[in-house]
Amino acid sequence: MPIFAGRFNTRMTATTSSIGILGGGQLGLMLLQAAIDWNLRIHIIDPDAEAPCRHLATSFRQGSLTDYDTVYQFGQSVDVLTIEIEKVNVDALEALEREGKKVYPQPAVIRTIQDKGLQKQFFRNHNLPTADFILTDNREDVARYTEFLPAFHKLGRDGYDGRGVQRIASADDVGKAFDAPGVLEKAVDFAKELAVIVGRNEQGELMTFPTVEMVFHPEHNLVEYLFAPAEINEAIDRQAQDIARRTAEAFGIVGLLAVEMFLTKDGEVLVNEVAPRPHNSGHHTIRANVTSQYEQHWRAILNLPLGDTTAYQPAAMVNLLGAPGHTGPARYEGFEQILSMPGVFPFLYGKAVTKPFRKMGHVTVMDTDLERLRQKVAEVKQRVRVVSN
Amino acid sequence: MPIFAGRFNTRMTATTSSIGILGGGQLGLMLLQAAIDWNLRIHIIDPDAEAPCRHLATSFRQGSLTDYDTVYQFGQSVDVLTIEIEKVNVDALEALEREGKKVYPQPAVIRTIQDKGLQKQFFRNHNLPTADFILTDNREDVARYTEFLPAFHKLGRDGYDGRGVQRIASADDVGKAFDAPGVLEKAVDFAKELAVIVGRNEQGELMTFPTVEMVFHPEHNLVEYLFAPAEINEAIDRQAQDIARRTAEAFGIVGLLAVEMFLTKDGEVLVNEVAPRPHNSGHHTIRANVTSQYEQHWRAILNLPLGDTTAYQPAAMVNLLGAPGHTGPARYEGFEQILSMPGVFPFLYGKAVTKPFRKMGHVTVMDTDLERLRQKVAEVKQRVRVVSN
Repeated sequence: MPIFAGRFNTRMTATTSSIGILGGGQLGLMLLQAAIDWNLRIHIIDPDAEAPCRHLATSFRQGSLTDYDTVYQFGQSVDVLTIEIEKVNVDALEALEREGKKVYPQPAVIRTIQDKGLQKQFFRNHNLPTADFILTDNREDVARYTEFLPAFHKLGRDGYDGRGVQRIASADDVGKAFDAPGVLEKAVDFAKELAVIVGRNEQGELMTFPTVEMVFHPEHNLVEYLFAPAEINEAIDRQAQDIARRTAEAFGIVGLLAVEMFLTKDGEVLVNEVAPRPHNSGHHTIRANVTSQYEQHWRAILNLPLGDTTAYQPAAMVNLLGAPGHTGPARYEGFEQILSMPGVFPFLYGKAVTKPFRKMGHVTVMDTDLERLRQKVAEVKQRVRVVSN
Repeated sequence: MPIFAGRFNTRMTATTSSIGILGGGQLGLMLLQAAIDWNLRIHIIDPDAEAPCRHLATSFRQGSLTDYDTVYQFGQSVDVLTIEIEKVNVDALEALEREGKKVYPQPAVIRTIQDKGLQKQFFRNHNLPTADFILTDNREDVARYTEFLPAFHKLGRDGYDGRGVQRIASADDVGKAFDAPGVLEKAVDFAKELAVIVGRNEQGELMTFPTVEMVFHPEHNLVEYLFAPAEINEAIDRQAQDIARRTAEAFGIVGLLAVEMFLTKDGEVLVNEVAPRPHNSGHHTIRANVTSQYEQHWRAILNLPLGDTTAYQPAAMVNLLGAPGHTGPARYEGFEQILSMPGVFPFLYGKAVTKPFRKMGHVTVMDTDLERLRQKVAEVKQRVRVVSN
């Protein structure tokens, strides 16, 4: 007896339907928040007993996401399985998929994306424009390609939130390269970094969110803030949207695909990397768009019609990163002051402990006027600090 | 160590802050959803072990809201106490308040509003325009006032969701009057029913939401659907906003006050009744307004700056009531179909069992064009049915 009539998974019933998420961090938290509207029952597993989702899921259990048995057993206990982080045991997901469990995004997509080398090779194989690269096995290997420098050396697996990327400007920097399988990627002289989030359901229905522009922290390779829509001309926007769509189609993904791109100074758009899940570049959609990326994720993996991605107003997103020099219980300076600013929406992740540059929350800023939007962003960045004392 | 700097309750810390809600129904659910943004820890008590909030609160316990000891003990376990239903033990709340606990809305406000007689008397005492009325002790008493008919007889206490109101057209109907303390209220020849939700914090800062227009179900005295903003002229709107503001000031409420009003055919605005909490007439604000009524509730009771109540677009709200003739596990016919309509947002309350006319969910509908908005509302009403089979 389906709770929803129609093509929706008929095993989903009012009393027995259950969805599992591998990972209970901030992306899981925002997925949970969106799931409340449709009374979806969400079960979460995360290695951290103090993960942001711990109090809000139908059930929460502590467990490794990379251990075969743990992931396999968790997957068996739910009807539909999804992720909020790609560092998970894909072998277990494949076993579950073979047994007929709905696992979205598909394990094969996660496997490719987990490895930056496979990911780049995938772009090349599918004629998706991307910066030139060489797959490397170790540091010694990198030393062989000095004519390819300046380049970035990216760790093949397990890079995360700015870790796992090194700029190798010249032969002198080769010592900074990772002594593990990786990708040596031609440094792109880019004007902007863009991102487009794509949703795609089982039927192959596909929708993109408006193109956004990300500004990275100069040292920490983390999104510092973001503007939506990106300030680019129509032709560039069409290119970015088209590449994002083609990338999602190439993967055949069911779920969300966040496509990060470079806009080069020559006006070329290149795929940088992708994530098969909700993404930092889409937090603002909760407030600024008709459908948020989180709701779109549920629509996509439950094979429901995708939602309208139109924005109500221009928006920006400021990541709240732990202040340098502060490690310990978190406190949010300036929280109340920014609450009195119109069109300013803080979101705190509930992480007990702050660390330098840890993602502790974000602030969405909206305004119909772009100049005022920029002023508000500057004010938010100046006022809020995540500290410990 | 306050989690938020400023005037915010300094006992609220990252690890120890806790907020309690008396009641875990759909209003509690939407309060929980809004609380996720600020990582508020919410504890809930409800007499129903299967209440909609059971899986989503930091803690959920089953217990009576009208039992002194239960409410008192629950209140002692939290830092700030609020309600999502006014049928609670006010003696316990007053004891907690005397001991210095933050209880918002204030127990005195709840006490007045719990009793429709006291409520009407309050309006009269504060020169708030309201339909003429007589306080009655019992049915016999009603029979004495036949010259006052046609009128509505309202049960003084414990009326809820359309129960506790009887139309007494003439002396022949007196048998329908309640044989308990109540209010005999002059039937108002109204053109429309309006509502304004007011937020007010400890500082006395006050903000109103735009005036909405409610259409009641002809038989069941339940909001069937709602349009925001109300189609009224500016002078009437000013009157409604002004009366709502004065009513909230008269109560000195900290929290939300939903003020339901009649617009008479003569263009007069009269207060009908009020609720000291989030209200059915504000569900659409989750999607349609910069700040939702639920976020505004948190801002008000935590003494934070109130949020901008501006609407992004005209909106409507359709209550999803259990279909007549269906009692049992709920199923939502037409859910998927309406998800494919742009600007249509269903919200399901997660009640396991549907009953005729039970509030099972609602659908927010938005459109920049009022005619299209009406068409979408008609389509939603025609397509969705909450059934059991």
